[in-house]
Amino acid sequence: MERIPILRIGDLLLVSIQVDMHDRLAMTLQDDLTDRIVKDRAKGVLIDISALDLVDSFIGRMISNTAAMARVLDAQTVLVGMQPAVAITLVELGLTLPGVKTALNVEKGIALLGKSYQS
Amino acid sequence: MERIPILRIGDLLLVSIQVDMHDRLAMTLQDDLTDRIVKDRAKGVLIDISALDLVDSFIGRMISNTAAMARVLDAQTVLVGMQPAVAITLVELGLTLPGVKTALNVEKGIALLGKSYQS
Repeated sequence: MERIPILRIGDLLLVSIQVDMHDRLAMTLQDDLTDRIVKDRAKGVLIDISALDLVDSFIGRMISNTAAMARVLDAQTVLVGMQPAVAITLVELGLTLPGVKTALNVEKGIALLGKSYQS
Repeated sequence: MERIPILRIGDLLLVSIQVDMHDRLAMTLQDDLTDRIVKDRAKGVLIDISALDLVDSFIGRMISNTAAMARVLDAQTVLVGMQPAVAITLVELGLTLPGVKTALNVEKGIALLGKSYQS
């Protein structure tokens, strides 16, 4: 079965989205991720979307929901690697990503998460 | 154009392979990765294959070649996240991965790379 791998780095989890999202894949990812947050006692989740040329309202909502799920499990989510064209489209379409922090790349995302729970 | 994202973590690069490899995608990955090793002065490359259910001789050779390219650029490669079924198939098919170190997961891969160049 197709699923998106979740990589653990210290107390963070990294998800790199490279394939087109559809309903079932998104649900599987949310199931897997919430399981892993609990099992690995993760304090943060990095979602990398550098491979995506397009973020539509479905993916936007999926990311927001995932971040909300992580939050109630006491993990913070940072969205990283957004392409400039995706940022332009998001704003032009009026899409917001409520409750989701963003960072330029994985490294800056790790730094952002580090600051927010180590301080 | 389809390409596999390369994520930078400190002086390491992380590549998570989630899609079926074909000739052109493999070449693009090798081009991108060698570029990034030089540009980011990376000391190590982690290739995660936890999403792959099957590693055939094409992917095996691609991974070995990529590791060889990284090596001449002074970066070490560690293959991480291999599924048990993949390990079984590799051995049964008589495929070896010459010049490629392996580790159970990304974390152990980072530790392995850290040991090999920090000592």
